[in-house]
Amino acid sequence: MNLVYLDNNATTKVDERVLEAMLPYFSQEYGNPSSMYDFAKTAAHAMQNARGQMKDFFNAENEKDIIFTGGGSESANLAIRGVLNMNKNKRHIITSKVEHPCVLNLYNQLEKEGYKVDYINVNSNGDLDLEELNEKVDYDTALVSIMFANNETGVIFPIEKVVEIVKSKNKETKIFVDAVQAAGKIDINVQELGVDLLGVSGHKFHAPKGVGALYVNPKTLITPLIIGGHQERGKRAGTENVPYIVGMGLAAALAKDGLKYEATEVKRLRDKLETNILKNIYNARLNTGVVNRVPNTTNIGFEYIEGELILLHMSDVGICASSGSACTSGSLEPSHVLRAMNVPFTAVHGSIRFSLSKYTTEKEIDYVIEKLPPIIEKLIGISPYQDELAAIKKLRG
Amino acid sequence: MNLVYLDNNATTKVDERVLEAMLPYFSQEYGNPSSMYDFAKTAAHAMQNARGQMKDFFNAENEKDIIFTGGGSESANLAIRGVLNMNKNKRHIITSKVEHPCVLNLYNQLEKEGYKVDYINVNSNGDLDLEELNEKVDYDTALVSIMFANNETGVIFPIEKVVEIVKSKNKETKIFVDAVQAAGKIDINVQELGVDLLGVSGHKFHAPKGVGALYVNPKTLITPLIIGGHQERGKRAGTENVPYIVGMGLAAALAKDGLKYEATEVKRLRDKLETNILKNIYNARLNTGVVNRVPNTTNIGFEYIEGELILLHMSDVGICASSGSACTSGSLEPSHVLRAMNVPFTAVHGSIRFSLSKYTTEKEIDYVIEKLPPIIEKLIGISPYQDELAAIKKLRG
Repeated sequence: MNLVYLDNNATTKVDERVLEAMLPYFSQEYGNPSSMYDFAKTAAHAMQNARGQMKDFFNAENEKDIIFTGGGSESANLAIRGVLNMNKNKRHIITSKVEHPCVLNLYNQLEKEGYKVDYINVNSNGDLDLEELNEKVDYDTALVSIMFANNETGVIFPIEKVVEIVKSKNKETKIFVDAVQAAGKIDINVQELGVDLLGVSGHKFHAPKGVGALYVNPKTLITPLIIGGHQERGKRAGTENVPYIVGMGLAAALAKDGLKYEATEVKRLRDKLETNILKNIYNARLNTGVVNRVPNTTNIGFEYIEGELILLHMSDVGICASSGSACTSGSLEPSHVLRAMNVPFTAVHGSIRFSLSKYTTEKEIDYVIEKLPPIIEKLIGISPYQDELAAIKKLRG
Repeated sequence: MNLVYLDNNATTKVDERVLEAMLPYFSQEYGNPSSMYDFAKTAAHAMQNARGQMKDFFNAENEKDIIFTGGGSESANLAIRGVLNMNKNKRHIITSKVEHPCVLNLYNQLEKEGYKVDYINVNSNGDLDLEELNEKVDYDTALVSIMFANNETGVIFPIEKVVEIVKSKNKETKIFVDAVQAAGKIDINVQELGVDLLGVSGHKFHAPKGVGALYVNPKTLITPLIIGGHQERGKRAGTENVPYIVGMGLAAALAKDGLKYEATEVKRLRDKLETNILKNIYNARLNTGVVNRVPNTTNIGFEYIEGELILLHMSDVGICASSGSACTSGSLEPSHVLRAMNVPFTAVHGSIRFSLSKYTTEKEIDYVIEKLPPIIEKLIGISPYQDELAAIKKLRG
């Protein structure tokens, strides 16, 4: 067993079919899709086809509602800045305490620029406080930005209800959904959800890193973030990344087809991993509720031991997992998501996210189930909290 | 002869070696370079290596001076907004009349936001009016943004002199150079030039579309355009596009090695094409001076006939060229670059840019030399300006 990759919320392997679909657009059909001659039309058509695939992926009304971007962070920045620039007299924003750092850091900056930002709480299961949301929306609320599924815990937020609450209090308020961690795991239907803007990142569903898409409801106006050429109907300048756009289109089609597999087989393997860890390792606790989660993710706290050490020992036996967002790795700050959920301090530091994909095999899960307990046991042995661990063992072990 | 691609200023073919270097990072070494485990280190190292290649390409002092971006437009937007946000009390910008649309459209927007922008003139050779530049720089000038080489004409601006003039009048003024059309054609040496910021786009030198780099002098502070994760030292959030970054690094190294070939062989073929067209087609005129140009580009006006028709007829025989920037194609506006040069109205509409690359062969150039005259002759035949054409023929033919 060389590599057991259980960090698919950080990034995914590019599907071989996706790679194959991209290949002709590098050194053969390399025309600039904006060029007039016949040679460039193949690239332009391929891009058009991918736009249709993204439209279907989102169940958007129209291909014109899709903007191709350079990834999830750009999608979020474009959506948020774009909407706020269009409503400069409104200065109130609502988001959640557990959004992705790319969104939270942007709101930090917007606060410095004079915006008032409310951060909605979650409960210990990770579920959004909808009553608090309801209280906060007012006439001045320009934007509500709520993620679809949390990157660290996999917890799904009830976007349809969020939209209902927000729009019933202020129908002018725009709603942006960061759907980066939902894409490819659960169905996304922008029309049913009733959202105004929704962003995804290709590399979370087996397209490459460096391409994303933003759905923009036709009634929602935004300013561009990257100004320049006429590409993407003036909403995103720059020569289009044809190979990746083609790749993401196919990846989206494959992901849509694969949703049932996610909901059954990927979920079964995730549940098997989770159940076995919780059963076999006495200081393990599930950091979320059992329901309302994307099928591929589990977040487990190993009390009184250090997450970074668990990761290093797992890495030594070829298991890749994560203690939080890859975007914040290296920092020793405990997870803002788990803190917002009031996960006990003694478990936050030893919390590990396992995120599976369609490529995860039963053999790999069995391998982790075999390899993890001795690692945890070893770390328990060197923990300075022997009394506390003994107490837990007595209770649960 | 299936395809003669002479539109390399619009985009280029990805070098097969570049593609090969990228391939492992899609479906094998697909780790997120920010992740902690060993598996991700290969990707992180490859990116580090590419950063070194870009440092060498620019002759920058330090790898930390390189920011990877999603392309030339993003590089320009990041540089320009980034510098202006850091000096909000200064409201004056200087640029040239012939910058790329991505830069000019951004300045248009900045004017709406209250900036005063001066657009420096060029003469009929396309050369920048350095005296006018000297007059315009004052205490309030936050930014001077001048392109290195023009995309439509290939004319090279004397960046070293620009820097000297600007810094001698106001050493606080920051200088951004859009080097998108210089990269891979002539040497770029940021230390010798003395610039503060300099941007390039990978797909203009045989890397893919959707990746770029921005050099930022260590003394120059900028705000990020895309806010979020810690990537690129907080200057550009988003999971890094490892395959393209690796590809651009190699493409840059190959381009640096190939500069002599550009200056000799590519130039020889460009000169052969240009000389033959000017000799054999009586209504053809060179729209620029002969010197001070990148070696791969020629811009030729065919008087009293329509450029779009020339392009269509060339496309029919497999020749790809362009009437201006691909980013503005589709628009019927005559080129802002040629108008700034005071190219006669009768030639502007029939002006064609031919841009060669290292892949251009003598056979291809001979093919164009053979195929173009009958196309022009045919279009002359249907021109409504028969008297004028007859007069030119008498004079030059």
